[in-house]
Amino acid sequence: MPTHLGQNQYGKAETRVVRVVRDGATHHLKDLNVSVALSGDMDEVHYSGSNANVLPTDTTKNTVFAFAKEHGIESPEAFAVHLARHFVTGQEPIKRARIRVEQYGWERIGGPGHSFVRTGQETRTTEVTFDGERWQVISGLKDLVVLNSTDSEFWGYVKDPYTTLKEAYDRILATEVTARWRFAWTGDEQPVPAWEASYEEVRGHLLAAFAQTYSLSLQQTLYAMGSRVVEGCDGIDEVRLSLPNKHHFLVDLQPFGLKNDNEVYFAADRPYGLIEGTVLRDGAEAAIPVTD
Amino acid sequence: MPTHLGQNQYGKAETRVVRVVRDGATHHLKDLNVSVALSGDMDEVHYSGSNANVLPTDTTKNTVFAFAKEHGIESPEAFAVHLARHFVTGQEPIKRARIRVEQYGWERIGGPGHSFVRTGQETRTTEVTFDGERWQVISGLKDLVVLNSTDSEFWGYVKDPYTTLKEAYDRILATEVTARWRFAWTGDEQPVPAWEASYEEVRGHLLAAFAQTYSLSLQQTLYAMGSRVVEGCDGIDEVRLSLPNKHHFLVDLQPFGLKNDNEVYFAADRPYGLIEGTVLRDGAEAAIPVTD
Amino acid sequence: MPTHLGQNQYGKAETRVVRVVRDGATHHLKDLNVSVALSGDMDEVHYSGSNANVLPTDTTKNTVFAFAKEHGIESPEAFAVHLARHFVTGQEPIKRARIRVEQYGWERIGGPGHSFVRTGQETRTTEVTFDGERWQVISGLKDLVVLNSTDSEFWGYVKDPYTTLKEAYDRILATEVTARWRFAWTGDEQPVPAWEASYEEVRGHLLAAFAQTYSLSLQQTLYAMGSRVVEGCDGIDEVRLSLPNKHHFLVDLQPFGLKNDNEVYFAADRPYGLIEGTVLRDGAEAAIPVTD
Amino acid sequence: MPTHLGQNQYGKAETRVVRVVRDGATHHLKDLNVSVALSGDMDEVHYSGSNANVLPTDTTKNTVFAFAKEHGIESPEAFAVHLARHFVTGQEPIKRARIRVEQYGWERIGGPGHSFVRTGQETRTTEVTFDGERWQVISGLKDLVVLNSTDSEFWGYVKDPYTTLKEAYDRILATEVTARWRFAWTGDEQPVPAWEASYEEVRGHLLAAFAQTYSLSLQQTLYAMGSRVVEGCDGIDEVRLSLPNKHHFLVDLQPFGLKNDNEVYFAADRPYGLIEGTVLRDGAEAAIPVTD
Repeated sequence: MPTHLGQNQYGKAETRVVRVVRDGATHHLKDLNVSVALSGDMDEVHYSGSNANVLPTDTTKNTVFAFAKEHGIESPEAFAVHLARHFVTGQEPIKRARIRVEQYGWERIGGPGHSFVRTGQETRTTEVTFDGERWQVISGLKDLVVLNSTDSEFWGYVKDPYTTLKEAYDRILATEVTARWRFAWTGDEQPVPAWEASYEEVRGHLLAAFAQTYSLSLQQTLYAMGSRVVEGCDGIDEVRLSLPNKHHFLVDLQPFGLKNDNEVYFAADRPYGLIEGTVLRDGAEAAIPVTD
Repeated sequence: MPTHLGQNQYGKAETRVVRVVRDGATHHLKDLNVSVALSGDMDEVHYSGSNANVLPTDTTKNTVFAFAKEHGIESPEAFAVHLARHFVTGQEPIKRARIRVEQYGWERIGGPGHSFVRTGQETRTTEVTFDGERWQVISGLKDLVVLNSTDSEFWGYVKDPYTTLKEAYDRILATEVTARWRFAWTGDEQPVPAWEASYEEVRGHLLAAFAQTYSLSLQQTLYAMGSRVVEGCDGIDEVRLSLPNKHHFLVDLQPFGLKNDNEVYFAADRPYGLIEGTVLRDGAEAAIPVTD
Repeated sequence: MPTHLGQNQYGKAETRVVRVVRDGATHHLKDLNVSVALSGDMDEVHYSGSNANVLPTDTTKNTVFAFAKEHGIESPEAFAVHLARHFVTGQEPIKRARIRVEQYGWERIGGPGHSFVRTGQETRTTEVTFDGERWQVISGLKDLVVLNSTDSEFWGYVKDPYTTLKEAYDRILATEVTARWRFAWTGDEQPVPAWEASYEEVRGHLLAAFAQTYSLSLQQTLYAMGSRVVEGCDGIDEVRLSLPNKHHFLVDLQPFGLKNDNEVYFAADRPYGLIEGTVLRDGAEAAIPVTD
Repeated sequence: MPTHLGQNQYGKAETRVVRVVRDGATHHLKDLNVSVALSGDMDEVHYSGSNANVLPTDTTKNTVFAFAKEHGIESPEAFAVHLARHFVTGQEPIKRARIRVEQYGWERIGGPGHSFVRTGQETRTTEVTFDGERWQVISGLKDLVVLNSTDSEFWGYVKDPYTTLKEAYDRILATEVTARWRFAWTGDEQPVPAWEASYEEVRGHLLAAFAQTYSLSLQQTLYAMGSRVVEGCDGIDEVRLSLPNKHHFLVDLQPFGLKNDNEVYFAADRPYGLIEGTVLRDGAEAAIPVTD
């Protein structure tokens, strides 16, 4: 046979589990989307169709629901750690588990009780990988849309024969933040990070750095955001940001006898600039994959 | 010719205009998506292709941008009123204009300044129609996702040979609210409603009614929400709600030796129940179209 | 009580049913998305939450699956007729049923057998409404994207102070067709239309009229498409078309010393022109709702 | 400074270019979505905001349009090769270019002419990377939905305490194929692959292998599809497939007194199994990134 199997993985994607905790009349809610990917001794199922080593994806889905009851959901990270450990230690052929979780935010309608409204803002994410010995936790967020209506310039760039862009000394800077940050934590012998607190901390750093950076390019803003997180959070060694430049073009109102003093913009969809980069703590090695 | 033209309309859809107002170092932001639909004496363009009566859709787009400068954007309703009046009074062949606006919410990062984050929650909507004499304003919101983790039952329903559903005495009730409310205001001689204040008021009533209604069916919750708005807002005569029942199914954990005491749910996508209805002030005539 | 209930309806939306018919080794496939909306004596469930008149939406879903077995799926229209008749005649409180169906196309891989690939092109639609006496069938299609790379002009239009558009004597005309056509058939005593054949026929007329019309405006093309259907199909009295103008802008290549002789275009997303209209057989009354 | 910059890239994403070639009255159409990502000596723009090494993303967009005129679009691969070579050889600070292209299919309405309808089926993709010396071309397709209505089983799998799935001896197997295949071609001194012909060839192999494999697991089908491509195409050394298991669940019709002999299925959305894997020619090293 002139071909062979390379990297492979399988599991149930996008199991939508909602966990309610009733503390008297006050309810607490966790709303997750969980995707499981397992790999290990899986050659035979590919070559011959023998499922002797295959735990069904239906079972991985069931396990998500059962674990929501058995372990509760303290945080997406803690929940994913439970799942990853279970699959790798519970099934001999499974050598590696990667659990991805999206968490949707809810806030209360009128004080403590049982009524909630989706926050609708960013989605919190995590990806926990375990190979039986070593943990890798990359948490993050996506869909967080931010905008500065001034304090952004863009000039002094390379001009080649295809360059027609005018330099800008006061422009809108807007982006939809996708961020992933890797925790230094890798082993059960180390103290477990405070997952919930760290999320709020990182989110705060990202917003503050975006707002407070006088920007000469979106790359500069990206580095400011990433380095603020690493410098502000001891347990985080690496941040990767993907920042689409959501262009807001100043509309030419001159044909109508009007002056547009940075007041009226057209918000464009496509094409868009896309700026991506990794910020590392000195001494740390990059491990967040370049996926885009 | 054995055929003829019926209802028709045309215009530019989804012009994305962002308006910045600079109050010293404090900036204010309005972010709209504007769709224009015009109708009138348009037979010829359909029958022969003569554009003699056709104001280009490109021009309606330009007008949106120019009016953002000339009139500012106080509220989506006020902005749409400016546009509708302009098209109907400015072009003889145009007899009717319908302006639809979506408004996206932004909140400040840190205190007053120039940095914003998209709220991400509901989208505010309005539809203003003008025929040269009479105004119709139907404002609304969409994408507002709400959930009660208790105080919802469903039983006592019809059982036919295809009925297998078990009665429920404590279930999650969740929906994604689409609401449209019609203002009594129809003429320039009447006092103009306080568009901005009314939006916050209606939104508050919808959330409160959802949270406070002990629900025996989603229809009951729908009526409670709609009647609360009409009763609470003098200037509003009619509300139409479209409430998809975002099913949360209790997961059967018995096969795993676990009890599920209303704790672990599967959030389903499709199919979903869809409950729609209109609530009217006594004496008012229905005018919000049944579009779904 | 100062408010009362207006128009209302309910049912299960988006039940995804796939029906396989095995003709020996040759299989046949129907792939539908079915949405049921029922109305009738439903005041009480809104006012008090009494479900005594309510057939659960879960039951309407079950009925879709059961009828796929009991009646088979000859066409989306015939299947919807079965469902609508059942709900209206089977439950006293239900006075009206509206069944919407989307059908996804599949073609065979290789010859006859059991392997299929989704066509991916347009989605076929139908909406069947029954009030116990009279039928209304509005069939259609959506997502059919078509383009003429020439034989399209746009000039001679109104110029107002906000007009900057240049006249065009050779442009790309592209649109994504949404079409709905109403059958003259309204009663069981009349011969039932040939649903399957009529779909292919209408689709053919729409494509041919789009391709063969030398267009001076998208409105002209719209009328040509609609009238071709009504003139070509005896059983169809009304057609409504919604045609977004998918703008393809000629790119200015002069800054790079290049001539763009109608060769290189930028395909824009938003904003877009939106042209909508109804074409009627003389003597017919309009009944397709204006939903957009 | 305790942090530093890691991997980074930037460019204009999703430039939508349509290229028309007029061969008398017969027109030819190419419809692409092009995304450019550049990297190189870009530290300063991140650290200080100096754009001295930055070719604006607006320029990369202009280049796409200009090259569509200058070089034409023979195939997405050839077009991407032109672009990648230009950026890496034309700008000293740029050390690496990655060009991604999506191509949308059109077929003719009627015979030769200027009228087209979008095929709507799969989207063709390519990703061309160049570092000044070595080329890497990974072409592919996505959104190709296929279904076998029989010849699929699933049994003999691991049962753990969370396993409730029933074994299946005749089920529907459906998936939405995402495939990426890597060409052996890496250098200008080697003969350039026949990009257009190879696409049709690979697509044919994928469909044939899917249809002809009697499947005991989706993994087996994946391997059959991948190995068929590598064995059938000399110039391709590696294939990676991502196959979501689009579950079709047999509906239980027993409560309604009906037998469901593999006739009526519920097509589910989420969760779904996700099977991913790489197939390699013996002796080849894996290079297609594991992105999912």
